[in-house]
Amino acid sequence: MSERTKTGIKGLDELIEGGLPKGYSFLLLGGPGTGKTTFGAQYIYKGATEYGESGLYVALDEPPFSIGPNMLKYGWDLEEIGRQGKFSFVDVSPMKRETKGTFVPAALQGSLIGSAKFSMDDVLTVIAEAKKRVKATRCVVDSITALTLQFKDDFEVRQQTLRLIKGLTEMEMTALLLAENPEDRQDMTHFGAEAFLAQGVIVLHMYRVEESNVRALEVRKIRGVKHTDRLCPYRITQEGIEVYPEETVFRSV
Amino acid sequence: MSERTKTGIKGLDELIEGGLPKGYSFLLLGGPGTGKTTFGAQYIYKGATEYGESGLYVALDEPPFSIGPNMLKYGWDLEEIGRQGKFSFVDVSPMKRETKGTFVPAALQGSLIGSAKFSMDDVLTVIAEAKKRVKATRCVVDSITALTLQFKDDFEVRQQTLRLIKGLTEMEMTALLLAENPEDRQDMTHFGAEAFLAQGVIVLHMYRVEESNVRALEVRKIRGVKHTDRLCPYRITQEGIEVYPEETVFRSV
Amino acid sequence: MSERTKTGIKGLDELIEGGLPKGYSFLLLGGPGTGKTTFGAQYIYKGATEYGESGLYVALDEPPFSIGPNMLKYGWDLEEIGRQGKFSFVDVSPMKRETKGTFVPAALQGSLIGSAKFSMDDVLTVIAEAKKRVKATRCVVDSITALTLQFKDDFEVRQQTLRLIKGLTEMEMTALLLAENPEDRQDMTHFGAEAFLAQGVIVLHMYRVEESNVRALEVRKIRGVKHTDRLCPYRITQEGIEVYPEETVFRSV
Amino acid sequence: MSERTKTGIKGLDELIEGGLPKGYSFLLLGGPGTGKTTFGAQYIYKGATEYGESGLYVALDEPPFSIGPNMLKYGWDLEEIGRQGKFSFVDVSPMKRETKGTFVPAALQGSLIGSAKFSMDDVLTVIAEAKKRVKATRCVVDSITALTLQFKDDFEVRQQTLRLIKGLTEMEMTALLLAENPEDRQDMTHFGAEAFLAQGVIVLHMYRVEESNVRALEVRKIRGVKHTDRLCPYRITQEGIEVYPEETVFRSV
Amino acid sequence: MSERTKTGIKGLDELIEGGLPKGYSFLLLGGPGTGKTTFGAQYIYKGATEYGESGLYVALDEPPFSIGPNMLKYGWDLEEIGRQGKFSFVDVSPMKRETKGTFVPAALQGSLIGSAKFSMDDVLTVIAEAKKRVKATRCVVDSITALTLQFKDDFEVRQQTLRLIKGLTEMEMTALLLAENPEDRQDMTHFGAEAFLAQGVIVLHMYRVEESNVRALEVRKIRGVKHTDRLCPYRITQEGIEVYPEETVFRSV
Amino acid sequence: MSERTKTGIKGLDELIEGGLPKGYSFLLLGGPGTGKTTFGAQYIYKGATEYGESGLYVALDEPPFSIGPNMLKYGWDLEEIGRQGKFSFVDVSPMKRETKGTFVPAALQGSLIGSAKFSMDDVLTVIAEAKKRVKATRCVVDSITALTLQFKDDFEVRQQTLRLIKGLTEMEMTALLLAENPEDRQDMTHFGAEAFLAQGVIVLHMYRVEESNVRALEVRKIRGVKHTDRLCPYRITQEGIEVYPEETVFRSV
Repeated sequence: MSERTKTGIKGLDELIEGGLPKGYSFLLLGGPGTGKTTFGAQYIYKGATEYGESGLYVALDEPPFSIGPNMLKYGWDLEEIGRQGKFSFVDVSPMKRETKGTFVPAALQGSLIGSAKFSMDDVLTVIAEAKKRVKATRCVVDSITALTLQFKDDFEVRQQTLRLIKGLTEMEMTALLLAENPEDRQDMTHFGAEAFLAQGVIVLHMYRVEESNVRALEVRKIRGVKHTDRLCPYRITQEGIEVYPEETVFRSV
Repeated sequence: MSERTKTGIKGLDELIEGGLPKGYSFLLLGGPGTGKTTFGAQYIYKGATEYGESGLYVALDEPPFSIGPNMLKYGWDLEEIGRQGKFSFVDVSPMKRETKGTFVPAALQGSLIGSAKFSMDDVLTVIAEAKKRVKATRCVVDSITALTLQFKDDFEVRQQTLRLIKGLTEMEMTALLLAENPEDRQDMTHFGAEAFLAQGVIVLHMYRVEESNVRALEVRKIRGVKHTDRLCPYRITQEGIEVYPEETVFRSV
Repeated sequence: MSERTKTGIKGLDELIEGGLPKGYSFLLLGGPGTGKTTFGAQYIYKGATEYGESGLYVALDEPPFSIGPNMLKYGWDLEEIGRQGKFSFVDVSPMKRETKGTFVPAALQGSLIGSAKFSMDDVLTVIAEAKKRVKATRCVVDSITALTLQFKDDFEVRQQTLRLIKGLTEMEMTALLLAENPEDRQDMTHFGAEAFLAQGVIVLHMYRVEESNVRALEVRKIRGVKHTDRLCPYRITQEGIEVYPEETVFRSV
Repeated sequence: MSERTKTGIKGLDELIEGGLPKGYSFLLLGGPGTGKTTFGAQYIYKGATEYGESGLYVALDEPPFSIGPNMLKYGWDLEEIGRQGKFSFVDVSPMKRETKGTFVPAALQGSLIGSAKFSMDDVLTVIAEAKKRVKATRCVVDSITALTLQFKDDFEVRQQTLRLIKGLTEMEMTALLLAENPEDRQDMTHFGAEAFLAQGVIVLHMYRVEESNVRALEVRKIRGVKHTDRLCPYRITQEGIEVYPEETVFRSV
Repeated sequence: MSERTKTGIKGLDELIEGGLPKGYSFLLLGGPGTGKTTFGAQYIYKGATEYGESGLYVALDEPPFSIGPNMLKYGWDLEEIGRQGKFSFVDVSPMKRETKGTFVPAALQGSLIGSAKFSMDDVLTVIAEAKKRVKATRCVVDSITALTLQFKDDFEVRQQTLRLIKGLTEMEMTALLLAENPEDRQDMTHFGAEAFLAQGVIVLHMYRVEESNVRALEVRKIRGVKHTDRLCPYRITQEGIEVYPEETVFRSV
Repeated sequence: MSERTKTGIKGLDELIEGGLPKGYSFLLLGGPGTGKTTFGAQYIYKGATEYGESGLYVALDEPPFSIGPNMLKYGWDLEEIGRQGKFSFVDVSPMKRETKGTFVPAALQGSLIGSAKFSMDDVLTVIAEAKKRVKATRCVVDSITALTLQFKDDFEVRQQTLRLIKGLTEMEMTALLLAENPEDRQDMTHFGAEAFLAQGVIVLHMYRVEESNVRALEVRKIRGVKHTDRLCPYRITQEGIEVYPEETVFRSV
């Protein structure tokens, strides 16, 4: 069996034979409010604090000055692990403010989402430098949906996504690529091509049942891994995301 | 927890941990007749009169000479708070008449919706000037749907929306971007990309039940905020919009 | 409350606080056979004969030589009110015959629907002249769907519709813009952008129930007006269109 | 009431106040096998033999050498009424064979469907000549769907259809324009624009009930005519098309 | 009644007044596995062996080196009737192997499907030569779907199909044009335009009932022929395709 | 009956008269997680070890450094049969790492998926060389979906697929072309044209039943083969894919 990377998501690793195959890129699909950013930050934070693996968080849309403070409510101090040399943001997000803290070490000059000078090669170069600096083996890209703002047609988006996956795979990073699935459809139409490029796909579902929402995680595909076929309920608790492999999503009637 | 901006919408703030995270842009989606303009004007008027925060109303389609008088029925005299230096319209709407009142301080010359010379940078410059003049921290843009009149393809609309959000975020305005959701579908297909650009999305639903309409507000997503998952009924009363967090939208059967 | 214009449609004005807000443009959507032309002619004829307000009928598709005689069956003699100086056709329709009557005072030379020389600015100029001549405050445009014949892509149609609404609003006409809604869908997808440009939208529905049709009027939106939410049945009688606010469209089961 | 043209379709005229308004163009929509060509030929043949009105049959797809013999089974000898000077084919169809009969008087040289030299103006010129020769007041165009073969985009097809309707209306012909409605949907999406250009629309429906088909005629719209709302069953008998206004299409349950 | 061509499909001719109208082109639509090639080969083989009529099989996708041997299982030796001068393949298919047999008399040099030099006029010239050589009155084209590989946009495919039908009709061949209907939808959307170009349309349906398939033939339209409206079951037996006009497709419940 | 190639998939060959017709290309369609790569590797491995036939695995997306080790869990050592001269990878996949093993004999220089220099002719040349070297008669292409990354429009993808099938058929390889069917729809819309190009189509279905998945194999079409119409359940066991022709997919109710 191939070497595995622990996700740090409670309940998930046991569904996928102990973790994600090391050194590949995986797609994390979910609609708004499904907790993709929390999932990504948890993967990075737990990696640094529990498994001794450094990580990078590549911000393509929500800015680090928003993500960092938002994660404090789970007790995850990204700034702190940044200072310990176990973490770095790679900030490609379009919005900038006067930096109040100091935990955003790598800022791409000019090649940001929304700028005409954006270049995936520049982004990969900065990722490679940051990887070298903090010795990262984990990576989160939040989110590849931002590429649809940068590149006009689907074909170009798909080619840039391929370039990104190719780059991350050659760096032997175990990477999560977050992607917005606007309608939470069970199919993957919208990210069909992106899904087939990745080594695996995890989907975060949110179903409206009566007037509230039910959340369920699905391991759609992980190449080379014998994984569960079941939808597993998950919740976003004060400790982050927890998956409940023993529970069922819908009660029988 | 991040600093919050009170919405001034009765019943809403308690659903979102006390208010909107300060300094970010939020999307307010709704079909025709759901009360988006009323929501926006209430946010501005209550800000000025109850929370001591000045505001701007950026009119991209309905002209100020229509919005201003229409809000008088709720007892909101925008002209009056304009005279008090707590409010300004930024009038980018295409329709112009001989100004009968004097409460429209900032009129963009030439760069209006429907004109070939329209430029988002000009609009942002005028917003920045108006912000400075009235010391505004709140902003409403009514509505970004108007950009579909100005820019031919979706990609350009999306890029302009990004530029607008980027500009407002860098000005640290807490902004509501109104958008027409023509079919009141529960998904956000039509504004998928715009929704993911924003820090949060609030949806105003209107369901036809038998021969009348039922209204419900949904907090779809607010980054960094633990918000309710439930659809909450709301009504448009003589005091403006009121949300009823304790009530249910549909009776059980 | 803003000043109102009586529609002259029996039963409608009481649904909308006494009439349409004066000086704005409204969309009247309906499928074939819903009575849009009858609605428009009734608005003009009643305006001239009962409310002392002159009107214009801008014909973009069906020619005046067809509309005029067809309205005689309701007892509305447009030719007669034309002779009295209270009415004028503005004939932009593509089809021309030897004029047998004389009641078509304003004929656009060259700039007709279907001609390469069509120009909305020319149309607005002729409308302005006709308005001046008969002192019109009411206007019907039948129908803006004809613009889809003239302009190749949706964006251009939308921009021309904006130009038309802008022109009519600046002339302070209370205008009805008729539009064909081919499938009578309850949503307004097809005229989504046009609907959001207008100050209000009224929809004429026709439902096939068993083997005949049931008609219902819906006030979708009127900015600044507190209007009914209900679908109201209407019929096309010998006196024209009548709305029945007290009746229900569908019987309960 | 406007002057009417008898359709010659048994049972139809009583549904539309005695006939089609004289001098306008009407759309006849139907799927394959609904009898559009039979309807058109009956309109022409009955016009010539029962109402003393000459007619033209403009063939855009099926060639006259097929249509003529096929109508003999109803006892309609188009060749014969052609010899009597009451009828003429205008053959614009792409397929040509050695002419065996002589009843095709007007053959367009060069400007046929499928040829790069096709021109609607040429077609209208030949129609005008044929009209003059046989003093035609009736016209059938079979079918405008053929224009989709000739013109690449929908906009061009729509403009050519407008040109055709405009030409026929200016010649004061009472014309039937046949159009293929491939899926027999009740809506008119596919011919939405064409339908709104015409003075009226008649739809031939075919419903699959269990393993056979039920046929029903619907008068969708005729401007200026108070027509039935009901679907009326029709059959294709040895005497041609017969409509049964007294019968119902579906039995009640 | 027009002259007829026997199909050689057991049970079919009685459904269509004795056979296909001679000298026209007919569309045979069906999804994968419905037996289109078998139908076509049967039409040709029975023509040659039972009705004394020579035929051509124009192969546009599946190569003759596959079709020929595959038909032997029905006992139809195309090679043999080729040697007798009653049959010829016209091989336009893209795949070529060293010819092992000799029964492929007409091979188009260069103008094959998938080649940039493909020309419908060349194909028609070779068909005309082959027709002359074997005195063919029957023709099968398998399949026109291949034209979607050759021509980029639908409009071009439609024009080429028109050219093909026009050519075959002018040669007075009774031709079957096979077309793949990928989803076996009852409508003919996909081949709407092609269907209306043809003199008739026969559809082979395959319905999944529980875990197996039920086959049914529908005569959708044959111009000038009074045909059944019913869906008739058919099977692919060791003698080829057999239609069962007396049976029903679905049992009543 | 034509010569057959054993698939090596337990239970499948008996459904298709003993195997796949030798020398043709077949499409294997399936959504993510249906086991396409396992199916392909099993076909190759069993060919080499049980039927004495060498094979090629053309990797277009997942890299050989991932596929090879992943197949070890079934006990299939591709590296070993590569050393025995019975197998070769043809590596066209975009991702490259320092090769740790030596079992990837044929690496295309430059003409890889994702590179501007990609050429199907180069790929076919390398396939031909590898075929010659290991005397391969079997071939798997995993997956043709990767061509959608390389070629911008569907037409080009289809033409390249035709070129590939043409090339493999001329080499007389019995080839499986894997293709991702993102939504596991029963129709083949997405690969409609590709499906009709191939000599046969096998579909791997995955149905969500309650909260787990049910797998079923369907033989959609194999030209010249009398195959089952039924959906047959299959499982992915420790020995690879097994089809159960005697079982039913869904229990009756």
